[in-house]
Amino acid sequence: MSEPSKSSSYSFFNIVEKCDNYPYSDNTKSSSKPNDIPLLLDNDIKVGLLLPPTVEALKEYIRLKEPNPFIIEDKYVKFAAHLNTFESRTEIVKQLFNTWREEKIFPALSGWRDELYPIYGDPKSPKNIAFVMERCAAPLFGVLTFGVHLNGYTRTEQGQLKMWIAKRARTKPTWPGWLDNAVAGGIPYTLSVRESVIKEAMEEASLSMEIAEKAVPVGAISYFTVSQRGLQPEIQYVYDLEIPLDVEPKPLDGEVECFYLWDMDELVKHIKADEFKPNCALVVIDFLIRHSIIDPNNEPDYLDILNRLHRRLDFPTMTI
Amino acid sequence: MSEPSKSSSYSFFNIVEKCDNYPYSDNTKSSSKPNDIPLLLDNDIKVGLLLPPTVEALKEYIRLKEPNPFIIEDKYVKFAAHLNTFESRTEIVKQLFNTWREEKIFPALSGWRDELYPIYGDPKSPKNIAFVMERCAAPLFGVLTFGVHLNGYTRTEQGQLKMWIAKRARTKPTWPGWLDNAVAGGIPYTLSVRESVIKEAMEEASLSMEIAEKAVPVGAISYFTVSQRGLQPEIQYVYDLEIPLDVEPKPLDGEVECFYLWDMDELVKHIKADEFKPNCALVVIDFLIRHSIIDPNNEPDYLDILNRLHRRLDFPTMTI
Repeated sequence: MSEPSKSSSYSFFNIVEKCDNYPYSDNTKSSSKPNDIPLLLDNDIKVGLLLPPTVEALKEYIRLKEPNPFIIEDKYVKFAAHLNTFESRTEIVKQLFNTWREEKIFPALSGWRDELYPIYGDPKSPKNIAFVMERCAAPLFGVLTFGVHLNGYTRTEQGQLKMWIAKRARTKPTWPGWLDNAVAGGIPYTLSVRESVIKEAMEEASLSMEIAEKAVPVGAISYFTVSQRGLQPEIQYVYDLEIPLDVEPKPLDGEVECFYLWDMDELVKHIKADEFKPNCALVVIDFLIRHSIIDPNNEPDYLDILNRLHRRLDFPTMTI
Repeated sequence: MSEPSKSSSYSFFNIVEKCDNYPYSDNTKSSSKPNDIPLLLDNDIKVGLLLPPTVEALKEYIRLKEPNPFIIEDKYVKFAAHLNTFESRTEIVKQLFNTWREEKIFPALSGWRDELYPIYGDPKSPKNIAFVMERCAAPLFGVLTFGVHLNGYTRTEQGQLKMWIAKRARTKPTWPGWLDNAVAGGIPYTLSVRESVIKEAMEEASLSMEIAEKAVPVGAISYFTVSQRGLQPEIQYVYDLEIPLDVEPKPLDGEVECFYLWDMDELVKHIKADEFKPNCALVVIDFLIRHSIIDPNNEPDYLDILNRLHRRLDFPTMTI
């Protein structure tokens, strides 16, 4: 992934569309739908979407397996009937991705994280979790993933709104050098939304527990990205945190190169120059709408932007 | 329309679902789709949805008309080719609804407002407006309508959040006696979103221009209601206004019986008791999410609620 270019200027809608780029079925103007088929649990619940290269690799994989873990048909791929528990599905998926990782057939798997993500859908399991799988493999299965992003902002004594923006380390496996929200991360299997945001705020931005705990939930955005890595339907819980004027986020765990503190004009300039990791731009755009910087009286795509920041994703989510 | 009952208790999701109750095409569990067909402009752009009683009444209406204003087929109703301008469509629609009003065949038309709403879709017209039509007839054509709602809130000196809630006058043609946002109204043909909210704030709540102008845009909600009146796909622009502690909204134009000032617990209680006009409840729920009263860690339907507050409505909107 190359670093961002600084030359072009985009509209907010262009930026949203770059991230939410899986075609809508009711839109005849949009590009054609990828040739994907659903990944089903043994009980027929759809938990993912597979592109042809994944289906081909799965066919190859099951040739050598007894009993057969996946039923592969033209219209779907399904977990075999004996794989009807959290444990059995988790184990077979682990073996599968370990094999593909060793064979190096999917570049996405070179960014291995050793971070397990929950896939929801099994009504018989606690919290509805059908299985867990390695984070970087999620786009190969086209499963719904969950993250949490935090807008860190300040208000000057004159009331001027400013936002802290992270620049991603050049060593990150994905989007090195691009701009990011003050704090962002996936929600691993073991943590709640709130625990995730507090942990990341401390690890990524060196914020104290006392400050991180003041982060407040303000909504969620959802979108569906098609990329070279595969299919990424995603939901990001959004938190806002007013950071005191005398506190400065600082890189800690090597994920961030540096932090910038920008006023709204500067922020908008960098979004429109396409320097943000796309889903982070969406979190900022949602902030700009909630804080009246983007206004229905001057933004022609106001309604379309709001719609696409809250895309309906046809996959099961956690039941609590 | 009877006044609200005070007995039942609903979840936030139940309340959202009551208002956004047109079935989703991908949801096999939901009730079946109404037997509606699209209303098309002469250029085939879909601007509304017609239920069988409207189609039958249209068939009767065109029997006596020369030249024929509407082409009625099994799968659609279309404006005739000679009705290809703003003026000609507006005139024929005006004649049609005046006739139906006199004939008293649709109870919805007894709530005549003399308020013209724009229907978007004609790329050749200024602001994309295909025609304008009487507000109360909109559900008969199933056209997309636009309104603006304002959350009037205060913060006490101790920082406690409270919200001003209007009780609708018992003389209102729709939802008499139900609870409403501090300020709400449709967006007529002649006003911008911002002009509408300021005008309504002054007329409905006696707020001074100086205070009303401090209202800030914070997003929009969209939903699709099926009711006895017909089909109502709607978008509400949402504004927040912090009302100074020493200012009290007061009824002025007879639309509101009285105003209440409630803390968040009281507010939630009245929403869950189903005492709010449904779309006004949705505006409050959106406020409660943005202000962290509804939290992803304790609201099981958090994501579903956010999705359904931002329903994708497959109709043209204004281009600016």
